[in-house]
Amino acid sequence: MQPTNSPKADNQIIDKAIWVAKECLSPRASRYDESASFPIENWSDLWKHGLLSISVPKAYGGLELDMPTYILVIENLAKGCTNSAMTLHMHSVVQQFINELATKDQKKLFYTEVMDYGKLFASWGSEPGRRSGSQEIRQTVVTPHGQGYSINGTKHFCSMAGAAHRYLIHCTMDGYEDNRGYQLALVPNDASGITISGEWNTLGMRGTVSPNVTLENCVVDENALLGGPGEAMNKGVIESFGLGYAAIYLGAAKKAFEFTMDFYKSENGAPSLDPPYQNPIAQRTAAEMSMALESAQYVIYNCAKTWADASPVERKVFAARSKYIASQASLQVTSQCIQAIGGRSAQKAMPLERIYRDIRTATLMPPNIDLAMEIIGKAELGVKDY
Amino acid sequence: MQPTNSPKADNQIIDKAIWVAKECLSPRASRYDESASFPIENWSDLWKHGLLSISVPKAYGGLELDMPTYILVIENLAKGCTNSAMTLHMHSVVQQFINELATKDQKKLFYTEVMDYGKLFASWGSEPGRRSGSQEIRQTVVTPHGQGYSINGTKHFCSMAGAAHRYLIHCTMDGYEDNRGYQLALVPNDASGITISGEWNTLGMRGTVSPNVTLENCVVDENALLGGPGEAMNKGVIESFGLGYAAIYLGAAKKAFEFTMDFYKSENGAPSLDPPYQNPIAQRTAAEMSMALESAQYVIYNCAKTWADASPVERKVFAARSKYIASQASLQVTSQCIQAIGGRSAQKAMPLERIYRDIRTATLMPPNIDLAMEIIGKAELGVKDY
Amino acid sequence: MQPTNSPKADNQIIDKAIWVAKECLSPRASRYDESASFPIENWSDLWKHGLLSISVPKAYGGLELDMPTYILVIENLAKGCTNSAMTLHMHSVVQQFINELATKDQKKLFYTEVMDYGKLFASWGSEPGRRSGSQEIRQTVVTPHGQGYSINGTKHFCSMAGAAHRYLIHCTMDGYEDNRGYQLALVPNDASGITISGEWNTLGMRGTVSPNVTLENCVVDENALLGGPGEAMNKGVIESFGLGYAAIYLGAAKKAFEFTMDFYKSENGAPSLDPPYQNPIAQRTAAEMSMALESAQYVIYNCAKTWADASPVERKVFAARSKYIASQASLQVTSQCIQAIGGRSAQKAMPLERIYRDIRTATLMPPNIDLAMEIIGKAELGVKDY
Amino acid sequence: MQPTNSPKADNQIIDKAIWVAKECLSPRASRYDESASFPIENWSDLWKHGLLSISVPKAYGGLELDMPTYILVIENLAKGCTNSAMTLHMHSVVQQFINELATKDQKKLFYTEVMDYGKLFASWGSEPGRRSGSQEIRQTVVTPHGQGYSINGTKHFCSMAGAAHRYLIHCTMDGYEDNRGYQLALVPNDASGITISGEWNTLGMRGTVSPNVTLENCVVDENALLGGPGEAMNKGVIESFGLGYAAIYLGAAKKAFEFTMDFYKSENGAPSLDPPYQNPIAQRTAAEMSMALESAQYVIYNCAKTWADASPVERKVFAARSKYIASQASLQVTSQCIQAIGGRSAQKAMPLERIYRDIRTATLMPPNIDLAMEIIGKAELGVKDY
Repeated sequence: MQPTNSPKADNQIIDKAIWVAKECLSPRASRYDESASFPIENWSDLWKHGLLSISVPKAYGGLELDMPTYILVIENLAKGCTNSAMTLHMHSVVQQFINELATKDQKKLFYTEVMDYGKLFASWGSEPGRRSGSQEIRQTVVTPHGQGYSINGTKHFCSMAGAAHRYLIHCTMDGYEDNRGYQLALVPNDASGITISGEWNTLGMRGTVSPNVTLENCVVDENALLGGPGEAMNKGVIESFGLGYAAIYLGAAKKAFEFTMDFYKSENGAPSLDPPYQNPIAQRTAAEMSMALESAQYVIYNCAKTWADASPVERKVFAARSKYIASQASLQVTSQCIQAIGGRSAQKAMPLERIYRDIRTATLMPPNIDLAMEIIGKAELGVKDY
Repeated sequence: MQPTNSPKADNQIIDKAIWVAKECLSPRASRYDESASFPIENWSDLWKHGLLSISVPKAYGGLELDMPTYILVIENLAKGCTNSAMTLHMHSVVQQFINELATKDQKKLFYTEVMDYGKLFASWGSEPGRRSGSQEIRQTVVTPHGQGYSINGTKHFCSMAGAAHRYLIHCTMDGYEDNRGYQLALVPNDASGITISGEWNTLGMRGTVSPNVTLENCVVDENALLGGPGEAMNKGVIESFGLGYAAIYLGAAKKAFEFTMDFYKSENGAPSLDPPYQNPIAQRTAAEMSMALESAQYVIYNCAKTWADASPVERKVFAARSKYIASQASLQVTSQCIQAIGGRSAQKAMPLERIYRDIRTATLMPPNIDLAMEIIGKAELGVKDY
Repeated sequence: MQPTNSPKADNQIIDKAIWVAKECLSPRASRYDESASFPIENWSDLWKHGLLSISVPKAYGGLELDMPTYILVIENLAKGCTNSAMTLHMHSVVQQFINELATKDQKKLFYTEVMDYGKLFASWGSEPGRRSGSQEIRQTVVTPHGQGYSINGTKHFCSMAGAAHRYLIHCTMDGYEDNRGYQLALVPNDASGITISGEWNTLGMRGTVSPNVTLENCVVDENALLGGPGEAMNKGVIESFGLGYAAIYLGAAKKAFEFTMDFYKSENGAPSLDPPYQNPIAQRTAAEMSMALESAQYVIYNCAKTWADASPVERKVFAARSKYIASQASLQVTSQCIQAIGGRSAQKAMPLERIYRDIRTATLMPPNIDLAMEIIGKAELGVKDY
Repeated sequence: MQPTNSPKADNQIIDKAIWVAKECLSPRASRYDESASFPIENWSDLWKHGLLSISVPKAYGGLELDMPTYILVIENLAKGCTNSAMTLHMHSVVQQFINELATKDQKKLFYTEVMDYGKLFASWGSEPGRRSGSQEIRQTVVTPHGQGYSINGTKHFCSMAGAAHRYLIHCTMDGYEDNRGYQLALVPNDASGITISGEWNTLGMRGTVSPNVTLENCVVDENALLGGPGEAMNKGVIESFGLGYAAIYLGAAKKAFEFTMDFYKSENGAPSLDPPYQNPIAQRTAAEMSMALESAQYVIYNCAKTWADASPVERKVFAARSKYIASQASLQVTSQCIQAIGGRSAQKAMPLERIYRDIRTATLMPPNIDLAMEIIGKAELGVKDY
């Protein structure tokens, strides 16, 4: 494939991400997968190398990466450990929300927790019975309560539940009946009324540990709210979830592809056979995978390049385009890699089967393939309600 | 889909298979998968209900099913537990080899072990560095040794290693340099010189437990050989492996499809949404899956129907056609089911993620998709060397 | 591929169709295509060999073929000339409507025209602004007028306009507001008020000559109506359009495939190259095409086999399944044949480019791929309104 | 889709190409297609607007476009008339060969013919029995003859035969047995011994008029040769054929896509139906097409951007990547557009069916899809002999 580093990106930080992925994250990836446990040591290394701050403003000591660089960092970290890259990305989107919505005092508090103490922030949006990524109103409600607020509702797929320092809960302010009441609350993990109830034993993305969580009369102080009702709506931040997911799929699938190419090149085949790389079918498979990855890569990079100047609606379409094509490419490539190497690739001693499971799971995140196509198609056809 | 029971099949035995799958095999399927252990209780139930004898001749008390019925039995058992269906199929192909090649004394001995004692027979063909399903010579060698024989070589993907009562080892008779020396040996599991060496921790088909096995000066008596050198070649038995695999993929994928349709029909959706089955995209996905399964089904059933009258070469093409189309359909359908249901489907509490892993693994068995297409294409183009 | 002749079919008439296709229809196919003119000599040959009567009851001297035989006749005729097979199929569905709905006097009149005079009957259902194959009410209205009726409306894609002896017009009886008013009228081609207005210069299926037709105060006598309002609805006849279309796509695509395989086998390649049939990519392409055709074939044949016992709703689903899979297979195969042979295949001296155009056009007929998938999906999901 | 104009491109000349395509080329496109005749008036307009000189050096008065700009010009012209864009591209590659290989006197002569007289130059490479795009030796031989040379051989797919002023004949110098004898000769169209023998009546690209040509003792003077034997091999010029073809497919498919989107947006549907653009299946189809085009676009543009700095071998891979993905995208999109609009789209009154035929034909040009995948796969697997 073509070189991945865009000319606009900060190559020094990308090189660091590549190094951290390979030397720190990758060796522990299969352990976190097997045990379905938080990648705590990986988080620690991300902090140590300054990568917890990729979306923290420079004014607060962070790296404040532009989107093209951010995407390349996430993509390359995903080559080492998808769970670490995914949780870092979620954490980093929360930092963007803080930057857009928080008061100075809040920023000082939250960013210090990240910069000085290596704390992670989670983001919980999904709810049972609500189509993720849709414009339906969130059923989790925040209600004024004394000097602060009380939160009630149920969230599922709550990544980092129990491990993150604060949880960004996507709520509706009591009394609103549509998304003008969309309200973010940043809840400390020791707040009252939080019950982590669901199990987490899944096909893939096991290290994100994302069970169900019930908030029942969860009381927080007045500083827990980020902005007022509806303010989070048109910031163009929530849209960056999907773009980052796309980068994670791309990175993981590239890792599978590179592993498979290396495997092919190192094989000598049986005495009576040509080396595998001389096989026309192997070449054809390599071509199919390479083109799928290159296509996805350019769509993602181009969306990242134009992100800063795009409106929230345009960002929504960019994220849908990136996530759709990266989903398709990574599902295809990870399956073809297993097919190409054969029975041995299904063994857990090789990374392919883990990446295969992670991709099938991660591509279900909102907007999923069907919703992404709906958004893309509506944009092309001039339909306004996406 | 159309009803699956062909008019030629014995419906009573198929109904039994459906019942056994649902009531006996299915409840234990996820346990065997999780522990990667032999489905011992399922095997016991298969024996109890007479299904270990589906390929044992009637003269020895077996069911001696014709191929259309056999395929429907295997398909329906796979709906309950792919590992149980797969090991039963392997065992049953060994019974066919015995029927074609064994002496009367051998038959009496082996069939009694199956019928009266519920013993299972394994079949080990794969070797490192040899393309499975190809015509390359097997590197495992059988050599005359005293009154009996000595076997030396390495096999991998040795399903039921340690659990089956006898292992059918696919060897070459010492002194031969091509497949005229192809020799089968049926080795008792307590023979000397057998080392089960590899680990078995894989993506799917975990309950087959298929590690590497080394045979080093493994000495067997004269009754261990099935037929003489080359005799197993043109019996049209080895080809039935592929046809049975196809039936297993079909059954497993149908189970995933039926589960998903039931899930859709039972969902009410969020208050503000139409029920999922009213969604045009859900309908389209259902159509894609349904047609893929129906296509695979008819190809397999038609091959089974014409199997008895087909030559070994024709059977090889039939198996390739069936295995190819069932591989493609089952890979597609199991992925689409997960896509359709979304994040919840990745949880181990639902059967979908297990079937998804089993299918990705099982479709790697020989002839894999690439080799199957090579066989099909050569047959269409009149090339003789497949 | 597997042999196509089902055991239930009447092989004698199929052999005749094969002969007629090859000797009579095929040599003229490219001429009718080029001139976009009616295949008059082919129709004459079809009459001469008794094939205009394949759906005329035996009581009236016809062949009254069962559905499996009918489908094989149509499929094999399509190998010779898609336009001739398509118009014969339309004509034959009209004969089925007559059989279900006509009075004895009508039957005697109409069937004699077919049997003794070789007349062709057309069927015009499509209307501008109405989704073909849907349940929307037809805008063409039939109104009592003196002793007879007056018909007013616009039809498009009116195959055989000007050439057929009678046109079956799908109308609504005046005063009805839903399909309970669905009314068939069999209008003689010399009736007043018929204006053939549109041009016919299309990509493919050019020999069907299917322009727009306006009926303005088209007056017919009382014998022109087939049955009363709504009677044509639940006869299970209209559904057979789709099944026959599927057979036509299958036959045409098989012709392209067989031509391509013969081409490959006869090529020697350049001096320095292996013969094309030794090329692994050619073999793979052959396998893909062969499996697509075999899949479509079995779905169609199985639908035909169970057609007689199926309800109208089941027949609608059968037709959708057959038409969908045959559309996909024939679009794929005809494109791959051109790809396989390369630049020479685009020349009109070879039949491939004509079949390619015919298939792309013919697969647009109702129910098209999208509507077929909707019907299939709704049936799987238990939705009633298809 | 994203805006197509790359920041590096010269937007003024691109705007001119867009204008010329729409106002000059497009209105005549269907006429040239129908008559399979040279787009003479379009060539005249291309000359009038300076576009015959897009690859003529600035020193000789030409535009000497860089590759990113060149590709956008060709793509946009293809939106108006594929035949005009294709012949202009071939002509322009010849201008590049002249720039790399010709003497000053030759340059002055040839470029003056283009600049001052609007002459077109053709390029004939294909030969019967030789795999296009391969490294097999060309069978057309150039032999010293008096003061000049004699050329003997047969070429097929000779675009602009009889209409171009000079033909670039790809030959082998007599006495060479491999590609070190690769020799280009620029033959005037009135040279002796040239027989235009084949017919030209094809599926698409009919306006290129590309029959067979026999050169029998075709005598040319010493100025007809471009460079010496083997010199044309490593210039990185011949590789630009494929990249330009890719741009043509992209432009034509975008035109089909835009036409279809406009059609959808302008439709109101039947009274009882939602407008087509509200249809979820229409939206999904739009998304599939849009993403296919965007993917192809970025691969092509990125190859163009890095072309100047790439080695001939890298350019070969770039061309293969671009041509492969543009072939797949354009075949998919043009078929989906016809599917989306339905029966009306097959009428010649709409441009879709013409573009559909052009794409199926044009994508057969070397390297075709299979060869392109071989080149891509070999590059990924480190195989050297592509």
